[in-house]
Parts: sequence; C-alpha cells; structure tokens
Amino acid sequence: MNPRMWIQRGVCLFVLLLTVSAFGQDSKRTVQERLGYPATARLLVIHADDLGMAHSVDKATFEALEKGWVTSASILVPCPWLPEVAHWTQSHSNADLGIHLALNSEWTSYRWGPVSPRDKVPSLLDEQGYMPLLETAVAQRAKAPEVEMELRAQIERARSFGIPLTHFDTHMGALNQTPELVSVYWHMGREYKLPILMERAEGAHHPQGGPPDQDAAFIDQVISINPGIDKKDWLKTYEQLLAPLKPGVYQMIVHLAYDDEEMRAVSWDHPDWGAAWRQADFEMVGSSEFRQFLKEQGFVLVGWKELARALPANYGQSQNK
Amino acid sequence: MNPRMWIQRGVCLFVLLLTVSAFGQDSKRTVQERLGYPATARLLVIHADDLGMAHSVDKATFEALEKGWVTSASILVPCPWLPEVAHWTQSHSNADLGIHLALNSEWTSYRWGPVSPRDKVPSLLDEQGYMPLLETAVAQRAKAPEVEMELRAQIERARSFGIPLTHFDTHMGALNQTPELVSVYWHMGREYKLPILMERAEGAHHPQGGPPDQDAAFIDQVISINPGIDKKDWLKTYEQLLAPLKPGVYQMIVHLAYDDEEMRAVSWDHPDWGAAWRQADFEMVGSSEFRQFLKEQGFVLVGWKELARALPANYGQSQNK
Repeated sequence: MNPRMWIQRGVCLFVLLLTVSAFGQDSKRTVQERLGYPATARLLVIHADDLGMAHSVDKATFEALEKGWVTSASILVPCPWLPEVAHWTQSHSNADLGIHLALNSEWTSYRWGPVSPRDKVPSLLDEQGYMPLLETAVAQRAKAPEVEMELRAQIERARSFGIPLTHFDTHMGALNQTPELVSVYWHMGREYKLPILMERAEGAHHPQGGPPDQDAAFIDQVISINPGIDKKDWLKTYEQLLAPLKPGVYQMIVHLAYDDEEMRAVSWDHPDWGAAWRQADFEMVGSSEFRQFLKEQGFVLVGWKELARALPANYGQSQNK
Repeated sequence: MNPRMWIQRGVCLFVLLLTVSAFGQDSKRTVQERLGYPATARLLVIHADDLGMAHSVDKATFEALEKGWVTSASILVPCPWLPEVAHWTQSHSNADLGIHLALNSEWTSYRWGPVSPRDKVPSLLDEQGYMPLLETAVAQRAKAPEVEMELRAQIERARSFGIPLTHFDTHMGALNQTPELVSVYWHMGREYKLPILMERAEGAHHPQGGPPDQDAAFIDQVISINPGIDKKDWLKTYEQLLAPLKPGVYQMIVHLAYDDEEMRAVSWDHPDWGAAWRQADFEMVGSSEFRQFLKEQGFVLVGWKELARALPANYGQSQNK
C-alpha cells in the first residue's frame, strides 16, 4: 500500500469517526441544544389546530399567525375552506403550516368526507359516507392501508395547492389510537421528510416496542386544556400548565375562531371545543397579559420549521414502518 | 257470446274510452286547470336555491320557508351543511324540498366535490378534485353515464338522511347545457317519479327533438333577476318581471342568505349571487310591500308537492332517455 492510499484510508476513517461521534452526541443532546439554545431553555410552539375547517376558524387563525400570537397551525385538508387557506398562503409564504391529518368529521350539522375515492377507503366512512364522528370509531374500523392512502391524498392535495408544509399532526389524536395507526403516522413523516407531532412518551406506542428513531420526536409534552374551564379562569389555567414546565420542547395547542353565527352552528350540540371555547382561546393568545406572562417566563417561541432543523440527518432514509 | 260477456266487454270499452278521453283532455288542459284552478290563474312557485350550501343560506331559507315567504327550496347535497338541513326537516316534515342537482362548485374560497367516488367520475372533476367552477366546463367534459351516477348518489344521500323530496332542479342550469345532459335530467325525474324544473320551451332541447312527455314540464317561465340591479331597484325589478305574466305556471327563483362574514367570505370575489345579493333577496321576499304586491296581483302561491299532482298518470313508467 503506497502512502497516498494510507492517507486516503486515514481520511475515510476520520470522517467516519466524526459522523459516528456527531450522531452519538446528537442522541445525547437535547432538542433545544441541537437547535443552538442552552440546555436550560424552554421552547414553545403555540399551535392553532383546524385551519380550513370553517371561515370563522380561518379568519381568527390568519390574524393570530400574522400578529405572532401563534407560531404555527395545521390544516384540515378535507374541509371546504382549504382553498381560502391556500389563497392566504400566497401572500404569507413564510407561515408555519402543517397538515392536521384527519380521519374524523366531528360536528353533527357540518360534515366532510375523505379526499381519496370513497370506494377505495370504505373502512374510513360512516354509514352516510362521511368520516366518523368519533376517534374511537377510527380505532375500531380503519384499515392501515386505507389510512395511508387517505393521508397521502390529503398531503398531495395540499401540495397541489402550492402550500409549503412544515409538519404533520393528527386531528383528534386519531393516529395515536392504535400501534398500527401510530406506525402509519410515523411512516408519513418519514416519507415526506417532515417532523410529526408526537410526545416523546407516545413514541413508545410504536409497534416495534419503541420509536424507530426517538431523535425525531421533539415534543416533551403537549399542553392543552380540558373541558370544564370557566371563561374567567381561561388565562390562569394555561398559565398554571405552562409555568412549572422544566427545560424542554413543548407544544401548546389552541383552537381559534370567533363565537359567531357560523361557528355556533357548527358546534351547536357540542360546546367542548366549540364557538365560545375558540373565542376564549383567541382572546387569550392575543391578550397582553398572556404575552407578558410568556416573556416573564422566558419561553422561547418557535415553529415547526425551526424544529425540523433538529431532525436526524438520516431521517426518512430508512422507512421504519 | 253470452250477455254477461257482452256486458264485460262493454265495461272495458267504456273504461278505455274514458281513459283516452281523460289523457286527451289532460294534454289540452292547462296545468292550472289540471290542479283545479281556473284557466285564467297565475300559479307561482317562490323558490329558494342552494339550501345546504352555507349556514348563512340555511338560516335565511329556513326562516323564509317557516314564514311562507318562499314556497319551496332545493338542496345542494354535496355541500357540508346538508346534515343541518336534514336535522331541520325532522321538525318540518311538510317543507317543500327538492334536490338542486349539482355538477358545479362555483366559489373560489369554498369548494366541494362529488358524492360518488372520485375515481368513478373523472369527467366531473377539475384538476384539484372538486366539481368545476363553471357550467360551461360541465358542458364540455361531463360524460353522461358519470353524470347519471353522480345525480343518483346525490339523491340517494338525501334519501338516506330521510329528507322527503318533492322535485329536482339543476344548479347553475348545468343540466340544460347539452341535449345529452337534458336527457339524463329528464331520466332522473322519471326514475324517481318526481317533477323536474324545466321551462316548457326548454323541453325542445331534448335529443329526440322534443320532450317525450310535454305534460310533465309544468313551468311556463322561470323568473329571476340578472346581475347589475341596484339594491334600491330590487323590489321594482321583480315586480316588473311578474306583473305582465299571462295565466300559467311560473317559478320565481331567489337566493337567500345573510350579508354576513361567512357568506361574504364564500362570495368574496364574485358579487353576483353573492352575500349582498342574497340579503337583498331575503329582505325582498319578507317585505310587506312584496307580499302585498303578490296579493293585489292575485298570484296563487304553490309548491312542487302541489304541482306534482298534475304529473301524467304514466309518468316514469316508460323510461324515455
């Protein structure tokens, strides 16, 4: 072996060691560190769900995104107002928008069906041809290949509208209901090389006994409120959930809309996550009290575009379904 | 032949002559006479289109139906608010409701697709998988067997919701665009034994050179206003269209909704038949001036349930496609 070959081999070995070391470090470093923040930082995505569901939702969410009251939102692609969202993104191409992958249509007066052909996804339909009202019906009946077809159809429709996408999440948590569904969810993120919303602990639901790549689960905990909160306690409740959080990465989920005719008609028999709830969330995220609270607490507000920079270099290269 | 057989034959001949004579008379008698009104009567259906399209449309139309400001309405089955309509009909089972057979989705911010599986009706879709914006696109591309499949899917979905149906009509006149589409439209009425909205003159578009049964075309003329009317001239314009009408059967078509956030967002780039237009129609049909005008003019207000009583006895028995 001549000296030139020795040098070549040496360079290769060095690069290999460097790569292994970087990956090794990455799996030990926190997400906030991988993004260049100190280990003590608390990163917070303030996320608005259900964009495209109703005009009332769109209008409130557009305002909150434009004013920085929320840092990200995700779109319900099967809903009729998707084109309104697509039109808005043309003049807001930097908006942090994902897809709220949907297998449910939860309101009784106002409903939607799948994007894929109905005869191809019979396990995703209720008896009237809509997506079912409840996430438990998805868990019981949805077949994984049909779920995968439908999720892909939703993603492709959003892409056909030219909407730049930053992440995927799961409407009503339907994709976290069974190990099989979790697997499809993980797979879609990898196929499109986009991060998905999943709490680190939820990764354990993966059918292989653990997430195939824990490094791609960024969120330590999702922060959201449950039904039963008085409107006067709205801000206080969120503050009590956020204040004690340790260093890490969090997603606070809000549901924005106005308490108007349209939203009241959508949610007429279901006050939870309904019109008044959404108006309360909207007022809260926009309030100077809440903005001041976040500042005092030192939360670092981030979106999914920024979180995606912490994805492992080999993310999506091997399809661990 | 014994006397009993002679009597039997005589009775048969008498019944046959009576039937022939009744049909002969029927084809000569006007629709108003067939319904028991004098030949000089002017019958008027005041008809609200697009029920189910948006909550704003539903709310205004429900009020107009409940107060008798309109006598009939028709439903856009592919739209997401269909379940709201179905729910309302449970407590208004006598409402005169038809299906607004739809092959178009005409608003740019808010869209819907077919009820039948998308892969079965490719000629009914635009490049984004919705029904096309314009009726001319339907005329150019829609294939008759796919149109028939989709119309049947819309009718069956409405029936699956338990909505009692009185008639069919055609959203944006798409089914009057070509002889082939007219033929499908006629066929659907006959298959379900329900009258369809078609002006007598339009019957001539039928591909066989004339309507197969002119007796089933009840409407002498559709009365509707065109774009470009000033709101202050709204009532006057309708009155000028209605006042000179001769004895016969007419359908006045209105488009009801409120000029509210939802309806303005639906029609943001298309003021014709938009939010302000619909509010003007709503105020007009409910105004005491218009109610007084109808009374003074002696119009007899009817719905499609009543018109259906004038259908030929053999309607739907032979399928003249």
